[in-house]
Amino acid sequence: MIILGIDPGTAITGYGIVEVKGNKFYYLGHGCIFTDAKLPMEKRIQKIYEKVSELVEIYRPNDLAVEELFFNKNVQTAITVGQARGVVLLVGAMKGLNVKGYTPLQVKQAVVGYGRAQKCQVQQMVKTFLNLNEIPKPDDAADALAIAICHAHFKQTTLRSGQI
Amino acid sequence: MIILGIDPGTAITGYGIVEVKGNKFYYLGHGCIFTDAKLPMEKRIQKIYEKVSELVEIYRPNDLAVEELFFNKNVQTAITVGQARGVVLLVGAMKGLNVKGYTPLQVKQAVVGYGRAQKCQVQQMVKTFLNLNEIPKPDDAADALAIAICHAHFKQTTLRSGQI
Repeated sequence: MIILGIDPGTAITGYGIVEVKGNKFYYLGHGCIFTDAKLPMEKRIQKIYEKVSELVEIYRPNDLAVEELFFNKNVQTAITVGQARGVVLLVGAMKGLNVKGYTPLQVKQAVVGYGRAQKCQVQQMVKTFLNLNEIPKPDDAADALAIAICHAHFKQTTLRSGQI
Repeated sequence: MIILGIDPGTAITGYGIVEVKGNKFYYLGHGCIFTDAKLPMEKRIQKIYEKVSELVEIYRPNDLAVEELFFNKNVQTAITVGQARGVVLLVGAMKGLNVKGYTPLQVKQAVVGYGRAQKCQVQQMVKTFLNLNEIPKPDDAADALAIAICHAHFKQTTLRSGQI
C-alpha cells in the first residue's frame, strides 16, 4: 500500500510518500510545494492542485492522508489554509483515492505514542521508521511523512481489530 | 460582460449569473448546489467543483466574483467553508476567469449603499436591479446575485476612475 501524506498550506504544502508492506515502512519521497505570495490566490490554489495531481500520477498512491487543521488564533488564516486543503481533498476525490484526515494529536500519538510530543520527537521517529540517514527537511515535508505513517498505523490497527 | 457570483459553503453554495451591458443588468440565472452531509468531505468538495465548472461551461462568464469569508465564532466552520471556497477559486483559475473576492460589507455598500444594510434590503435591491418579479430564493442564491452585482459596480467604478 502506498500512502501520500499531505500537510496543506497556502504558502507551503508539505508532502511525503510512504509504502507499507506488512509491518515495514519504505520511504519513497518527500518535499514541499511552494507558492508565490505575490500571485493571486486562485493561481496559488491551482499550483497546489496541479502539483498534488502530479504526485498522484508519479507515485500512484492508494490512500491520501491529510492533516486536519486546527487554529485557535487567526480565523482568516484558517480560511486560507482551508482553501488549500479543499483542493487537496479534491485531488483525492478526482483520482478515486481513499481519503482520511488526522489531527496533529492523532499524528503524535500514532508516531511517538504521546499526544503532546514535541516536533523534534516526531521528526526523530519519522527518521527511525523510514530508516533515513537524517531528519527529512523542511518541517512541512517531515510532517507530511508523519501523517502518512500515522495513517498506516490507524489502518493496521483497524485491520487487526476487524473494523475494515 | 457576464459575471458568475458565488457564495461558497460546504452544505450550500449559492450562485447567480448576471450580464452587464453598459449600465444595465440582465438576470441570467441563479440557484444552489447542495451537498449531502452524509457524504465524505472530498466527495462534497468534488460536487461543488464539478457543478461550478458546469456553470462556467453553460454561461461562459468573463468574471468570477466570490464572497470573502469572515467568521468570528467557529474556526472549524471557517476551515470547512474555506475548503469549498478553495475549489471555487480553482475553477476560476482553471477556466482562465478574472477572479475577485468581496467582503459582505463591500457587497452591502455596493448594492444598497450602506454597509450595515439588512439582508432583506440587499435582496430587495437585487430584485430591483435585475428587474425580477420576486426576491430570488434561497438566500444563498440571492446573496450570490448580490455579489455579482457588487463586482459589476466595482468594475464600473474602477473603469470610470481609470484604474483598469
